[in-house]
Amino acid sequence: MKTLILVRHGESAWNKLNLFTGWTDVDLTEFGCHEAYEAGLLLKKEGYKPELCFTSYLKRAVKTLNQILDAMDMDYLPVEKSWRLNEKSYGAIQGLNKADTAQKYGDEQVKLWRRSFDVQPPKLDIDDPRSPRMDARYATLSDEEIPLTEALKDTIARLMPYYQGTILKAFEKHNQIMVVAHGNSLRGIVKELKGMGNDEIIAFNIPTAVPYVFEFDDTMRLQKDYFVGNQEEIAAKMQSVANQAKKK
Amino acid sequence: MKTLILVRHGESAWNKLNLFTGWTDVDLTEFGCHEAYEAGLLLKKEGYKPELCFTSYLKRAVKTLNQILDAMDMDYLPVEKSWRLNEKSYGAIQGLNKADTAQKYGDEQVKLWRRSFDVQPPKLDIDDPRSPRMDARYATLSDEEIPLTEALKDTIARLMPYYQGTILKAFEKHNQIMVVAHGNSLRGIVKELKGMGNDEIIAFNIPTAVPYVFEFDDTMRLQKDYFVGNQEEIAAKMQSVANQAKKK
Repeated sequence: MKTLILVRHGESAWNKLNLFTGWTDVDLTEFGCHEAYEAGLLLKKEGYKPELCFTSYLKRAVKTLNQILDAMDMDYLPVEKSWRLNEKSYGAIQGLNKADTAQKYGDEQVKLWRRSFDVQPPKLDIDDPRSPRMDARYATLSDEEIPLTEALKDTIARLMPYYQGTILKAFEKHNQIMVVAHGNSLRGIVKELKGMGNDEIIAFNIPTAVPYVFEFDDTMRLQKDYFVGNQEEIAAKMQSVANQAKKK
Repeated sequence: MKTLILVRHGESAWNKLNLFTGWTDVDLTEFGCHEAYEAGLLLKKEGYKPELCFTSYLKRAVKTLNQILDAMDMDYLPVEKSWRLNEKSYGAIQGLNKADTAQKYGDEQVKLWRRSFDVQPPKLDIDDPRSPRMDARYATLSDEEIPLTEALKDTIARLMPYYQGTILKAFEKHNQIMVVAHGNSLRGIVKELKGMGNDEIIAFNIPTAVPYVFEFDDTMRLQKDYFVGNQEEIAAKMQSVANQAKKK
C-alpha cells in the first residue's frame, strides 16, 4: 500500500487578520504552531510513518512541517522544498483585507478572484516590492515562471510538473509521503487525485492542519481518502474557511 | 570567496542534566531554542546568506538549524540531513551522569572516554534499547556502519566521506554553506580545516550556538576563521564546556 498525507499549514498571522496572503511570507500564529504540533501528535498516535516530505518555500508551510515532524519525533526525515508548492499568487491584492476588498469590489468580484478557476486578480508590477522578482529565493526562476498573479488554473499548471515528476515519482522508492502546503496548491493535488471538475474543486475547502490521507494500491490506484481526526471538528473548520471572505 | 559556517546545537536537556548524550535523540531546552534563534539573528544582522545547509539526524541539531533559518527568514533553504554528522557515540555510558561517572571511574578514565583521540567508551550491545539498530531511522545502515561506541577517531572516520564527498563538493555550486551539528562531529571538520593534531583538537572546545566561520578563496584555500559575536561571552562559553566533566 502507498500513502500520501496532505496537510494545509496552520493558522497564519494574515489568516487571523483576514488579509490576502498568496506568496507573502507570513509567519504562523502561536495557535497555528500549536495546531500543527497537534496534527503531528495525531499522526504519531495513528501510526503514520512518512519516509519523505515535501513543502513550499513559504515559512508558514515549512514551520508547520517542522512542528509535525517534531511532534512525531521524526525531525530527521528528508524534506524537499519547492516554490511550485507555494500558495496561489493573489497578485496586487496581496496584503489587502478580504472583507474590505469585498466591500469595495463586491462579494461577487472577490469570490471570482478567490474562487473562480480561471479569473486572475489584478497583476503585480514586476518591480513591485511584493513581486517575487525582488526576492532572492526566486532568483533562479525565469520571468515566465515568476507569477505576478494567478488563477487557480495557473497555480495548478505550475504545480503539476513537480507533483507528477517529483512527488508521485518518489512513490517508486517510498511507501508513505507527506506534503505540507497551502489551500490552493493542495486543491490542485486533490482535484487531480479525485478527478474533480473545476467547480467542484473550487467549492472544496481544506481545513488547516488536518491530515488528509490518500491510500493507493501498489499500482497507485486510489483506494480511499479521509481526514484524520474528530470528524465534527473537521467539518466546522472547513465551514469557517468558506465563510472568511463574506462581508462583515 | 567561499564561506563555511559551522554551528554546534544549542543547549539540550541532557547538557543541562550533565548526562552523556551521544546518539540519544534528546530535545533542546527552551534556552537552547533561544540561543539558536539568537545565533540566527546575529547571522542575519552580519549579512550572511547561506545557500545550502547540512545537519545530523538528531533533533537537537535539526531544531537548532530550524531556529536559525527562521530567525534569518530563510526557512526555504534546502537542508540535507545525514547520520554521518551525528554526535560521537558514547556507547554504553549514554544516559549516565558525567559527574557521577567521574566519581565512579575517576576523572582520568572519564576524560579518556570523553577526550582521548582513540579510547572508546564501553560498547552498547547491538540489541540494547539504546542501540541505533533498534531505531528505524538507521535501518538502511549496515552493521559495519552502525556505531556501538566511538572514540573521536571513529567519529571522524565516518564523518569524512560525507564531509569530503558531499559538503565540500557542494562548494562547486555554492558560495556559502552552513553545517549545524555536534561538538565532536564539528571537531572532525575543524581538525581537518585547521590541520590540528590529535591533542590539539581534543583540547579545543566549540561553544554552543555560536557561528564559527571559515572563509576560503575560490580554490578553497583557507583564508581565515573566526567566531561571530561578542568575543568575551564566547570565551566564557568555551570554558564552561571544558569544565562539564569535572567532579562536583
